[in-house]
Amino acid sequence: MMDAVTTDEMTIGVLGGTGAQGRGLALRWAASGLDVVLGSRDAERAEQAAAELNETLAGVEGAATVRGAANRDASEAADVVLAAVPFDAHEKTLTDLVDVLDGKIVIDCVNPLGFDKQGPFVLPVEGGSAAEQAQTLLPGSRVIGAFHNVSAVILGDLSITDVDTDVLVLGEDRDDVAVVVELADRIPGMRGLFGGRLRNAAQVEALTANIIAINRRYKTHAGIRITGQGL
Amino acid sequence: MMDAVTTDEMTIGVLGGTGAQGRGLALRWAASGLDVVLGSRDAERAEQAAAELNETLAGVEGAATVRGAANRDASEAADVVLAAVPFDAHEKTLTDLVDVLDGKIVIDCVNPLGFDKQGPFVLPVEGGSAAEQAQTLLPGSRVIGAFHNVSAVILGDLSITDVDTDVLVLGEDRDDVAVVVELADRIPGMRGLFGGRLRNAAQVEALTANIIAINRRYKTHAGIRITGQGL
Repeated sequence: MMDAVTTDEMTIGVLGGTGAQGRGLALRWAASGLDVVLGSRDAERAEQAAAELNETLAGVEGAATVRGAANRDASEAADVVLAAVPFDAHEKTLTDLVDVLDGKIVIDCVNPLGFDKQGPFVLPVEGGSAAEQAQTLLPGSRVIGAFHNVSAVILGDLSITDVDTDVLVLGEDRDDVAVVVELADRIPGMRGLFGGRLRNAAQVEALTANIIAINRRYKTHAGIRITGQGL
Repeated sequence: MMDAVTTDEMTIGVLGGTGAQGRGLALRWAASGLDVVLGSRDAERAEQAAAELNETLAGVEGAATVRGAANRDASEAADVVLAAVPFDAHEKTLTDLVDVLDGKIVIDCVNPLGFDKQGPFVLPVEGGSAAEQAQTLLPGSRVIGAFHNVSAVILGDLSITDVDTDVLVLGEDRDDVAVVVELADRIPGMRGLFGGRLRNAAQVEALTANIIAINRRYKTHAGIRITGQGL
């Protein structure tokens, strides 16, 4: 339970924060006033990426300043940690941080995808999905799957003031899901929705292959919305 | 290629047409004026279901009359066949019809799902997905995956004049995909979009588990929309 801390007061650590997806979410969260620490294997690269984000954030009213740090320091500083590393670094990154991630919400947005001449395809994952793999590697953490299908291009462009996408939030604990829904709702035009239990994360991760196929065919940066009365 | 026949002139066969999804799509297509033959293992049950749909269609301007037939006769009569059988009947139904489905577009909307106390989950499928399994079982047919995530409740209620959902159409051949996109576009508020190759069908089928989880949590009948400039 995070009932002592509202998302307003949270520090978000972003592992793999120098990649496009991590940077994009860090930028949007900092723009919303959240304290964000970008993590990287290399603290210096993280500091450089943070400095670039802070340039982009200059003049944005209410924005927080982004810091950069080694992944371990970013994890220690954070209330909630986003794992935004490439899939081939997923297992090692999390295994190395099992102690500092203990007891924390870990949001996994990793998409296990490969590419060949025919475009994107889904990589097999031991344990079913990156999110389930994370929960297995981090038994003391509360893993939530989210932010899989969000365009890094759109996140990175603050002139787009309506990102026009829903985020499916997958997890076991209602309160943890609610925290991540709130984190999604902080980004203009983004809406977080409960999307099922962790065992149904694999297809949400994999759907990114379809989004990329759509992007290529229609020359767009696609997102998804969930329709339905009362939503 | 179907260039000799526009969708207006097509006859659609619906295998498993007595189930909710098959009936719902049959109803909407007949309402749009398309010639539809409901198929079932039991011709009499198909005829009864067709009669019920025709009652619902009474007074709908421009609606066609639905016929009922055995699955084999429905397949023979049709230009395009929708496989809407339960997953546990999928393999046998298609295997029995391999000769009459030869050369035809077969749209597969089957979702390999199971349910337990924790809700919906995804069943493993030999070949990756129901759609790929269909293509393997029907080497002479042109299999397209589509209509997986569409609410049967909303389809079945003609008073809902905007079904407010996109349909991801998965396939290898652009012309075949275009035919199925057109079939989706015939239903008010539905839009067909290319959603990737057949190897990316599994996650679209599986996403139905998430849609069901969303329906339960938010007490709605959810659908999906794809956002993106130019779409």
